[in-house]
Amino acid sequence: MAYFQTRTTPGRHFLQIPGPSNVPDRVLRALDNPTMDHRGPDFGVMGKQVLGKVKKIFQTESNVIIFPASGTGAWEAALVNTLSPNDRVLMCETGHFASLWREMAERLGIRPEFLKGDWRRAAEPDAIEAYLRADKGHEIKAVCVVHNETSTGCTSRIAEVRAAIDAAGHPALLLVDTISGLGSMEFKHDAWGVDVTVSGSQKGLMLPPGLSFNAVSAKAIAASKNAKLTRSFWDWAPMIASNATGYFPYTPATNMLYALDTALDMIFEEGLDNVFARHDRMAEATRRAVRAWGLEIQCAEPRHYSSVLTAVRLPEGHSANALRATIGERFNMSLGNGLGQLNDRVFRIGHLGDIGELHLMGTLSGIEMGLRIAGVPHKPDGVRAAMDYLSGNA
Amino acid sequence: MAYFQTRTTPGRHFLQIPGPSNVPDRVLRALDNPTMDHRGPDFGVMGKQVLGKVKKIFQTESNVIIFPASGTGAWEAALVNTLSPNDRVLMCETGHFASLWREMAERLGIRPEFLKGDWRRAAEPDAIEAYLRADKGHEIKAVCVVHNETSTGCTSRIAEVRAAIDAAGHPALLLVDTISGLGSMEFKHDAWGVDVTVSGSQKGLMLPPGLSFNAVSAKAIAASKNAKLTRSFWDWAPMIASNATGYFPYTPATNMLYALDTALDMIFEEGLDNVFARHDRMAEATRRAVRAWGLEIQCAEPRHYSSVLTAVRLPEGHSANALRATIGERFNMSLGNGLGQLNDRVFRIGHLGDIGELHLMGTLSGIEMGLRIAGVPHKPDGVRAAMDYLSGNA
Amino acid sequence: MAYFQTRTTPGRHFLQIPGPSNVPDRVLRALDNPTMDHRGPDFGVMGKQVLGKVKKIFQTESNVIIFPASGTGAWEAALVNTLSPNDRVLMCETGHFASLWREMAERLGIRPEFLKGDWRRAAEPDAIEAYLRADKGHEIKAVCVVHNETSTGCTSRIAEVRAAIDAAGHPALLLVDTISGLGSMEFKHDAWGVDVTVSGSQKGLMLPPGLSFNAVSAKAIAASKNAKLTRSFWDWAPMIASNATGYFPYTPATNMLYALDTALDMIFEEGLDNVFARHDRMAEATRRAVRAWGLEIQCAEPRHYSSVLTAVRLPEGHSANALRATIGERFNMSLGNGLGQLNDRVFRIGHLGDIGELHLMGTLSGIEMGLRIAGVPHKPDGVRAAMDYLSGNA
Amino acid sequence: MAYFQTRTTPGRHFLQIPGPSNVPDRVLRALDNPTMDHRGPDFGVMGKQVLGKVKKIFQTESNVIIFPASGTGAWEAALVNTLSPNDRVLMCETGHFASLWREMAERLGIRPEFLKGDWRRAAEPDAIEAYLRADKGHEIKAVCVVHNETSTGCTSRIAEVRAAIDAAGHPALLLVDTISGLGSMEFKHDAWGVDVTVSGSQKGLMLPPGLSFNAVSAKAIAASKNAKLTRSFWDWAPMIASNATGYFPYTPATNMLYALDTALDMIFEEGLDNVFARHDRMAEATRRAVRAWGLEIQCAEPRHYSSVLTAVRLPEGHSANALRATIGERFNMSLGNGLGQLNDRVFRIGHLGDIGELHLMGTLSGIEMGLRIAGVPHKPDGVRAAMDYLSGNA
Repeated sequence: MAYFQTRTTPGRHFLQIPGPSNVPDRVLRALDNPTMDHRGPDFGVMGKQVLGKVKKIFQTESNVIIFPASGTGAWEAALVNTLSPNDRVLMCETGHFASLWREMAERLGIRPEFLKGDWRRAAEPDAIEAYLRADKGHEIKAVCVVHNETSTGCTSRIAEVRAAIDAAGHPALLLVDTISGLGSMEFKHDAWGVDVTVSGSQKGLMLPPGLSFNAVSAKAIAASKNAKLTRSFWDWAPMIASNATGYFPYTPATNMLYALDTALDMIFEEGLDNVFARHDRMAEATRRAVRAWGLEIQCAEPRHYSSVLTAVRLPEGHSANALRATIGERFNMSLGNGLGQLNDRVFRIGHLGDIGELHLMGTLSGIEMGLRIAGVPHKPDGVRAAMDYLSGNA
Repeated sequence: MAYFQTRTTPGRHFLQIPGPSNVPDRVLRALDNPTMDHRGPDFGVMGKQVLGKVKKIFQTESNVIIFPASGTGAWEAALVNTLSPNDRVLMCETGHFASLWREMAERLGIRPEFLKGDWRRAAEPDAIEAYLRADKGHEIKAVCVVHNETSTGCTSRIAEVRAAIDAAGHPALLLVDTISGLGSMEFKHDAWGVDVTVSGSQKGLMLPPGLSFNAVSAKAIAASKNAKLTRSFWDWAPMIASNATGYFPYTPATNMLYALDTALDMIFEEGLDNVFARHDRMAEATRRAVRAWGLEIQCAEPRHYSSVLTAVRLPEGHSANALRATIGERFNMSLGNGLGQLNDRVFRIGHLGDIGELHLMGTLSGIEMGLRIAGVPHKPDGVRAAMDYLSGNA
Repeated sequence: MAYFQTRTTPGRHFLQIPGPSNVPDRVLRALDNPTMDHRGPDFGVMGKQVLGKVKKIFQTESNVIIFPASGTGAWEAALVNTLSPNDRVLMCETGHFASLWREMAERLGIRPEFLKGDWRRAAEPDAIEAYLRADKGHEIKAVCVVHNETSTGCTSRIAEVRAAIDAAGHPALLLVDTISGLGSMEFKHDAWGVDVTVSGSQKGLMLPPGLSFNAVSAKAIAASKNAKLTRSFWDWAPMIASNATGYFPYTPATNMLYALDTALDMIFEEGLDNVFARHDRMAEATRRAVRAWGLEIQCAEPRHYSSVLTAVRLPEGHSANALRATIGERFNMSLGNGLGQLNDRVFRIGHLGDIGELHLMGTLSGIEMGLRIAGVPHKPDGVRAAMDYLSGNA
Repeated sequence: MAYFQTRTTPGRHFLQIPGPSNVPDRVLRALDNPTMDHRGPDFGVMGKQVLGKVKKIFQTESNVIIFPASGTGAWEAALVNTLSPNDRVLMCETGHFASLWREMAERLGIRPEFLKGDWRRAAEPDAIEAYLRADKGHEIKAVCVVHNETSTGCTSRIAEVRAAIDAAGHPALLLVDTISGLGSMEFKHDAWGVDVTVSGSQKGLMLPPGLSFNAVSAKAIAASKNAKLTRSFWDWAPMIASNATGYFPYTPATNMLYALDTALDMIFEEGLDNVFARHDRMAEATRRAVRAWGLEIQCAEPRHYSSVLTAVRLPEGHSANALRATIGERFNMSLGNGLGQLNDRVFRIGHLGDIGELHLMGTLSGIEMGLRIAGVPHKPDGVRAAMDYLSGNA
């Protein structure tokens, strides 16, 4: 028997990891429509419609490439389309995902240089500017920044990063990973001067994993003409050529495109600004709960707070993984684990995607009860603090 | 465009009325399978399987009739199969649904006599016994009791009602409505000596509305041979005859049978006793929240508390309907309205079916925040009281 | 495990009975949306929308009652709302379903008189007129006609029946069963002067079974005020009262209403006239196949041919049931059995609902191959005849 | 509105391209289950179950890597994990897909040598043997063969290719693309001595596109340790490491894994041998139809016939694309187009996956009618020939 049919826990699972997020019923029902001929006339009409809609979410007039692959692939695509072997790139150690991206860059044969970070704040525009100013020969070909660092809950201010590069008068490309930020927090590919934006389907876009994206500026496309890293599956050029008529150069993930089409409708029906404001509200309620529990938020800079997730530090001597296991068993909820150096030190609360106030309150209640059962020292005031805020009496 | 596709409130709706309950994803995915030939060989196999499983939920070895109709129809079926015009029947005024059943009886041409109630407690076995003892001529043909009165949250103790009838030495049939109790609270058709049990799909069975049931004792079947009320659609006899081979005398609601088949699997996989214990726990947590708010539970007798729903009285001068509207608009949750004489005086919290602790906490949080926003006097301690209980520190 | 998950025949089942018809994917995906609060504000909006749309399919400005029950119930509703015990009604023996309706009338305590038929043609307006003229005292209260007799594939011409009643100057109500005709063949409740139209969800409306309908004229409503048959579940009055605001007096089959909403959209998107023309084309192709096989069509009057189904007579000495069993086992297709006196003598081909040319050709191919395997004498030219017609070279 | 909801053609679309194939309802309903935490304890259990099942379909005891990406990616993975820049590889020009794989190899920096072919037969073991014998220095690192060439309908005999390599005493790896063959025709990764088998989800496995596979021999894994092509997303090593406990190194396509789990169940329930025999039967019926039409099958070697698809050549002066367009518009069916040099010269009939006899007959009927309407010279005997065969009287 298929595995998913054998789980018998009553009630809906609370999937409160910072992605994949809870997929709305309407999106699941788009996903499960019969697959169509990806070379037939209907497909082209749908393809153009979806490719058009998806630009709006990146706030770009440029091309957005849709890969039938999960998000890690779009990282690779961003690098192999724009860079050549041994190219120097500047990366910022915002956390685990920035570190993974760096490791990937090394595997691909480029030379990442890493602006050290403490995993408690986002990328620092000043440091980037200083680093680039020092690169008189303009050997650094790209600056790579994670917009929303999913391992820490710190969000980099991309417009300021752009300003820093410009202030340094440096021609490096700006490559941004907003896999977990897109569709939940403001992101302006064009206005912020991003050259390649990397994203994925399973976070703010409210889809299952299986699609990923590169939004690409004209400058990035120009760079791709001379980039020498080998590429085939990830190559932008045949994608852009085929997309012009709504098709793809190889078999696309048709059913995921149905789901994307519907998810974008839902986001635009709610209104992008409303979506962002809702995420801000969920995040603020969560942080108030964390503070009321007397626990520490991993993100140490309030201006870097993420509206997508909140990573919470446990007091010394207490295991975040044990807490998560307790909550999973007792309350049928998944929370994000600590990644890399934060393993067992933090747990992460996803409050993104298709989420409303009561779903969040169920989540926070589960944590507060879990803290109690697991014997983690805390004040039992988090849920109340969140309610105070969400009911407008904060 | 179909209406359900036009709703744009983010996040899942909290459907916390006392039925229809939240239908689990697995049941929805059973429901949407292609309809099959209801006269073909496959159907008979499925029919026998489902008819066999459904007996276990009624805890009966007798026949259970499945009507392709919602629950109100099964009330009618119970009466028209067992009674004749002008028959006297004894009914117990437990609340709005008991009153509706009585009105139906009058419309059908029988003569209900109503044991007065105050809508704050369940049926009283002593009063039933006394009433029957007074009926020396045994003119009363049936005693009709609502097991779980959905308008008040009071649950009648059916075994005691049976004992009362026996103590009176009275031959009346015992007809019980457990539309909202079945699958959530213990119910033993055979062991409790019920003659006709009436139920429906959309409560503890976790289906959409559209199926209803009569479990029938041998004594009830015997009575049906002489019952003179006109009947055709609701007639048990052709149902029992066809069901023997897994078929139905007229077109059944095939897709609802798929869903029933799956929902029963889910209940048995969890275990009936576990299902009941879970409902008891949800109910107790809810009542502790209500008391901590300083509000009054409509059910005045603790031994009559329902594990399916809790009706909550509002302080004089406050509108339950205004509160529900506020909660609906602000928090995307439906609560049950006050019915009949309780309109605007109570709201009803459904905590039945496919529900776990965090879903309940979302529900209670929404109410606590709603009370605040609507300006209903209360102490903001309900959510904490529920958490204390559910995390085992109560 | 749920039964529907255990069938392992490869390929989609061909459900070619004359209803339930193949439910389109889009309708199944409407059906499986989460159940909503039937007393909440959203429901009223949806209810009004659906109740408005459904009138268009009956081509009426009057009320259409939607019962959360399968079609047999709507037969009962038509009778109990308009008639009194011992009322005489005129019924026409068009086939098995007309006979069942007559039996129901008897069980309900009215006195049906049956215009004899041979199950090979539809109702005869002349005979009706003559019968009514003979009823000088206007004792006959209603004329009951089956529009599309699903057991024979004969369709009565309702406008002519109306004209016959009028020609006789008789005040009887006209009650019409178009359970299997609606949505597949022209039906004009208002223009044809029908008083009560009975229908169901699982045929031309392309839904699973579980909803049924009464479209009611002002004259029928007037009759209902004085009708004395007992009724409660089927009573129109509370339905009409609640429907005014989009609600129902008792729990509706919410998920079926989602599906109805969507199915009506699909029909109107295609266009009612296009839907009817498509059914005519499928039916004509089928009849050409039957004739080319050298088999006889059960409907002996071409002007009575149904566009919904074709019943086919087998040569003497050959079993229609054996043929159907062979086709079921070898080719995974369900065909309709012969009902009543036609058992084993005919098989019935459903060509209704969500069906296109290739689906029909698969159906006819399966029959032609089945005839061969079962050893039924025939010419193997049916499929070719149908293709000749459908490709425009007939 | 989402595009797929705006198509209004009545009846189910016939998706008769050689993949994506028609996805069974049961698989679509697995696909649309709520996404789960890919790092939680449930996932590991499911992952191990699926990874175990998938080996059986490749008939291997070795590792099968599942990429969250469509099939083209798995081609790339096979090359980048086993080869180094400028490596010589031998490829066989079986058709369009072999040509595309060769182009990919060039883009990746290896040096493919192409055994010329005429696109009307499969790979020739003798030619491979001769070519390898000539490579005294064993410079050729891999032989790449397309098992089922989807552009021509020719199937290479992989066991014979293996024998040819062995006969030549050559150490080259054997890389086989069975993207469109797996699950429809016999494939034995271990017994046939394949080193890397490449496949995808959307053909015989009956899933939507979005997953692809590499089954890898111990020899291939050994080769991967020294292979120097850059790789990251496609790297086997972290996949194999994570898979040991049922997890993946980066976010997997969770919902596609649900669907895979279910599709594999369906295949094993039917039985692999039965699945293959069914495909053989569909293919033979199709070829008989093509011959009876007087048209030519693209595959010129009967021992190379594919059971997955049949490519059909049109008479000179007739356009295959015009024919396909006619059939699409008139009969709501998609057929495969001619690819590369076969554009407009052939059309391709997919008869794979979840398909039964009647579905195939609908398909062949649509083609026969389309030939007539489009004015393509033919004899109208194809459908009959197929029926003769399928009904056992051939």
